[in-house]
Amino acid sequence: MEKENVIAAGAIPVAEDGNLISANKKLGGVVTIIGTGLIGGSFALVLKDKGLAQRVIGVDKNIEHQKKALELGIVDEILPIEEAIAKSKLIVLAVPVDALDKILPVVLDQVQDQVVMDMGSTKENVIALVAKHPKRRRFVASHPMWGTEYSGPEAAVKNAFTNKAAVICDSEHSDPDALELVKNLYKQTGMHLIYMDAAAHDLHAAYISHISHITSFALANTVLEKEKEEDAIFELASAGFESTVRLAKSNAAMWVPIFKQNRENVLDVLNEHISQLRKFKSCLEKENYEYLEELIEHANGIRKILK
Amino acid sequence: MEKENVIAAGAIPVAEDGNLISANKKLGGVVTIIGTGLIGGSFALVLKDKGLAQRVIGVDKNIEHQKKALELGIVDEILPIEEAIAKSKLIVLAVPVDALDKILPVVLDQVQDQVVMDMGSTKENVIALVAKHPKRRRFVASHPMWGTEYSGPEAAVKNAFTNKAAVICDSEHSDPDALELVKNLYKQTGMHLIYMDAAAHDLHAAYISHISHITSFALANTVLEKEKEEDAIFELASAGFESTVRLAKSNAAMWVPIFKQNRENVLDVLNEHISQLRKFKSCLEKENYEYLEELIEHANGIRKILK
Repeated sequence: MEKENVIAAGAIPVAEDGNLISANKKLGGVVTIIGTGLIGGSFALVLKDKGLAQRVIGVDKNIEHQKKALELGIVDEILPIEEAIAKSKLIVLAVPVDALDKILPVVLDQVQDQVVMDMGSTKENVIALVAKHPKRRRFVASHPMWGTEYSGPEAAVKNAFTNKAAVICDSEHSDPDALELVKNLYKQTGMHLIYMDAAAHDLHAAYISHISHITSFALANTVLEKEKEEDAIFELASAGFESTVRLAKSNAAMWVPIFKQNRENVLDVLNEHISQLRKFKSCLEKENYEYLEELIEHANGIRKILK
Repeated sequence: MEKENVIAAGAIPVAEDGNLISANKKLGGVVTIIGTGLIGGSFALVLKDKGLAQRVIGVDKNIEHQKKALELGIVDEILPIEEAIAKSKLIVLAVPVDALDKILPVVLDQVQDQVVMDMGSTKENVIALVAKHPKRRRFVASHPMWGTEYSGPEAAVKNAFTNKAAVICDSEHSDPDALELVKNLYKQTGMHLIYMDAAAHDLHAAYISHISHITSFALANTVLEKEKEEDAIFELASAGFESTVRLAKSNAAMWVPIFKQNRENVLDVLNEHISQLRKFKSCLEKENYEYLEELIEHANGIRKILK
């Protein structure tokens, strides 16, 4: 066992300014990142940048991603999953949530005292899936609240997580040392931590992330359907349009499983959203501009929340 | 008449790099900006920054905006509208489109050989309104494709228009010298020009601007309606949510008149958008994830258009 592994993460001294005291760098020890794309790649980059990992091993079923992750310095080596797990102190799963369901139990089957964390966008499903696993307590369920519409190792960004929130779910079902390691790593990457149960996470995620993707996909399809003059879109599209539609570039392989796993919450929000849009439609149909103004002024209430 | 005013704008020599030859600066002469907010203020700032106006006079019914525009150096002086028009070579209307309908005829009644341009987000209505005005040919109908969710003089941005498109509508109904002045000014501010008729403009604007605002307002109302835990939104909201909802901060006083004037196009696009959202809803209800994947992959087609 490597030296860093025997330091209890919870005991790691952290300087006043929140930085690790240098003698205690390499907090994460040898880290395996399963899925070296946008999220896993970004996490690997910040671990390396801040000296939080002694070495980063990549596991990825996509050969092109393996090559790219090595080439971009995201990982130090690529290994088969069993070998990578055996050599690591921490295993990070950063794969689409359907793949997560398949890989997490396999990983837990192989761990001794390693820590396993995921970064998936839905939490109820995966947590239920491993609830009875004998190694459940080595697992910390988390979701860093960051992403872009791009994917793959090239999309990874070193400072992705700075000042963003990381949600940790159902933390009482994780061993204290495992939890401390994950908490410390997130803090060291510049994130602040939020704790909630998996059901609350999935509900909130439907509102502040999943519905935005659906509206953006639907808006792209609206424009692509009706606006045949692509040159006109290209020339005229202003920052406002780009802002509301950019998430429509997001990957189906990532998003279909999220919508599937968070189906009920997403349907609930989507129904509400369609009914809100119908109010706008009705105002225009009936030329009720007073109510249209009210609807807009109500929407302006979002200013209180998003500065 | 001031010296700059006797130079035919079309004859102004422009250097190879697109910059004015310095002897011919102050292209715009004395410019009156009616409406010193986000759009008018930004235009005033770029005119002053690039030496394209000899002096900028502000006209604004809002006393606070008058003060702020002077304080921020957006305008050199505030004058009553009649006096401002009499002293100017160019009068720029940058007011909400309902106010535009009231002010433009009044302005045209007072011009001799001055040039009048507007910057409104809808074009059919205002153009029809002044079609028979004896000074119609002194008017150039335009729409710079830029905006933010903020309003007022404080929201004005000096480099707002750089590399954006400016649409000029029904240019054959403007005098050549008036058209040349407006074209040259937009080019000098860093914009590229697009010409289309008013009906085409309003249709495209519904697709690439107006619908984005409706989806954003409706999304804000969806979240505000259902998500009572505002702290959770505030903490969890990621860049994706902010991106799709930020336009919901936009001003009702600006947007109600736009939706009213472009009602039919907006309704048409809104109906299509609701029907696209229903496809997502139906996929989730029926658990038809193959079709959901198709819908997302179709939406990804927006990548071709928005790089």
